[in-house]
Amino acid sequence: MTHPRVGVVGAGQLARMMLPEAIALDVGLALLAADPADAAAQRSPDVTVGGDLATFAAACDALTFDHELVDPTALAEAAGAGAVLRPSPRALRFAQDKIHQRTQFAAHGLPVPEHAIAEHADGVRAAGEALGWPLVLKAPLGGYDGRGVVTVGGPDEAAAALEALGGPPVLAERAVALDAELAVLVARRPSGETVRYPPTLTVQADGICTELLAPAGLHEAVLEAAGEVADRVAALVDAVGVLAIELFVEGGEVLVNEVATRPHNSGHWTIDGAVTSQFANHLRGVLDWPLGSTAMTVGAAATVNILGPGDGHDPRAARAATLAVPGVAIHWYGKGARPGRKLGHVTAVGEEADETRARAQRAASILLGEEAGDGR
Amino acid sequence: MTHPRVGVVGAGQLARMMLPEAIALDVGLALLAADPADAAAQRSPDVTVGGDLATFAAACDALTFDHELVDPTALAEAAGAGAVLRPSPRALRFAQDKIHQRTQFAAHGLPVPEHAIAEHADGVRAAGEALGWPLVLKAPLGGYDGRGVVTVGGPDEAAAALEALGGPPVLAERAVALDAELAVLVARRPSGETVRYPPTLTVQADGICTELLAPAGLHEAVLEAAGEVADRVAALVDAVGVLAIELFVEGGEVLVNEVATRPHNSGHWTIDGAVTSQFANHLRGVLDWPLGSTAMTVGAAATVNILGPGDGHDPRAARAATLAVPGVAIHWYGKGARPGRKLGHVTAVGEEADETRARAQRAASILLGEEAGDGR
Repeated sequence: MTHPRVGVVGAGQLARMMLPEAIALDVGLALLAADPADAAAQRSPDVTVGGDLATFAAACDALTFDHELVDPTALAEAAGAGAVLRPSPRALRFAQDKIHQRTQFAAHGLPVPEHAIAEHADGVRAAGEALGWPLVLKAPLGGYDGRGVVTVGGPDEAAAALEALGGPPVLAERAVALDAELAVLVARRPSGETVRYPPTLTVQADGICTELLAPAGLHEAVLEAAGEVADRVAALVDAVGVLAIELFVEGGEVLVNEVATRPHNSGHWTIDGAVTSQFANHLRGVLDWPLGSTAMTVGAAATVNILGPGDGHDPRAARAATLAVPGVAIHWYGKGARPGRKLGHVTAVGEEADETRARAQRAASILLGEEAGDGR
Repeated sequence: MTHPRVGVVGAGQLARMMLPEAIALDVGLALLAADPADAAAQRSPDVTVGGDLATFAAACDALTFDHELVDPTALAEAAGAGAVLRPSPRALRFAQDKIHQRTQFAAHGLPVPEHAIAEHADGVRAAGEALGWPLVLKAPLGGYDGRGVVTVGGPDEAAAALEALGGPPVLAERAVALDAELAVLVARRPSGETVRYPPTLTVQADGICTELLAPAGLHEAVLEAAGEVADRVAALVDAVGVLAIELFVEGGEVLVNEVATRPHNSGHWTIDGAVTSQFANHLRGVLDWPLGSTAMTVGAAATVNILGPGDGHDPRAARAATLAVPGVAIHWYGKGARPGRKLGHVTAVGEEADETRARAQRAASILLGEEAGDGR
């Protein structure tokens, strides 16, 4: 692959944030979009809208992914026709199927929350008896940002919860008493070369990640354990490009929550705060090119996700005022401002964690119109 | 300009490096290209090829520039039709006309090399008598990367030198005894808000800049004088967006060589080594949005320009091997590999200046095939 063209299935914000890295490396980046207005598609001259995956793949030297929601049959067909899938369908399956993921991780001795697979409402009730109430149910396929997850208070709610998730089978999981949540990003080449970013503290509200803090500021022993678990997961999944490992921290122990086999929201701070961004290392991994340093360039980085406000107004209008906050970068995804939708993020960099986080939060407040800026 | 569209006249590598910043800010970036294969045009969905400047400008909220070689009549016409030109034609003229620039700077008491304006061969000879031989002649218009500059050894060479530059008038300048060359980048808003990057040491070979080093590593007094002069130049030029001030250092004094009213090669390290890149601050200045921090995020940054090798081979083929050098980023411009042409640059970041420079040089050697990489 001397002059490679990488295909990306999906043209959302992750593909959009690959564009700058592809431009710098002068690597072709072809997008398979659902709509010409998709986040990445609107900024790229190399877009295929709604085409067949195998046909798209045949025109690319390697195929990678903006999301995991790809039909396994189409992937198998493309692979059969000679497409180079990075990550592989086998690796993607870990992110596509939460039951497969959890079962495999448990079988390989990785630390995971106690869980059961429920095939019917009685199975949910039995899991609740065994693991304790409340119980967390997760649909195996298609969930993200809090969707596909239901908390069940007791046996009476079992049937309704199962129905809300679209029916069995579901993953039933003990409600973990969270001290914190972490994400560890690993980048990997087909040859096995692996680099790991410093663990990121992820702050959630209503199942959606709202803030990222690096360094994570937890005890060194917890961070070391997180890194070690992440390396084991990456090897088991046989990841290529970026793999994100989301971890629960409970009583000083780390438990694997779930993985994403692609760049991930938790690594967005790396654009502004690391020697090599997750998007650059994803492309380098996919191309089987040497991976870049994951070291932080700054003392602290804090990212706040900007969700569409409930009143439907477009926070984009406040970009100028926001940039008056020192050391803040805006990353906007070009999406329409629907309530609750991830529209972009702001990252503050600095020397000290609390002060840096405060600036990121202030920038987010100005964007959302909760605080006036003084920039204009 | 709530949802602005910025037009860029020219679609070379500077416009190309504006693309990532426009994507992040979600600002429209329209390119007026000479050819669809231009460095930036090949990576953008918003390209006008060979159109009329005033028509192009009418569809943009503000117009800025990838290069200075723009017909002043066309600019005046666009301005007359209501286009917002940033920088203004008055500011652009400083970069377009070296005689105007030098004359104005001298009239305003800025430190410049002793010089004269020669209107004929006798004028060149008179300048040589007054300023000493050898004498440096510069064509007022269109020179860059060493073109448009001739050194005259003595009076006998005056007529030929003048002819080589396309005839009079020319700027005749005393040959400065260089200790070093510096460039200072300033970014400025129409309101006057100004930020300044740390001075960059620029290393030249045959009139072409080959290396950039930040911090510049000269005495603090020299760097302070450079910054002070740059601020005075920026105010005089009434710059908007990035202004690059190239300085000679001679006997501990700084002298203004020339300016560019746009992002500049000397600031390419800011993409990887500063909180805000020169391209982001250029757009922010053009939009009249608050400017970003110019602080370095790393202890040292070193950039090496990659010029097309004499044998015509394409260094792009060695990208993978190059990336095995730690802490090195590649920025490629997508241009055909003609001998001597600027094809891209590599930037190394690190803690210590010499070690960082050595890595950048090693990366460049691998790209150019002078040294084998070990990355694959």
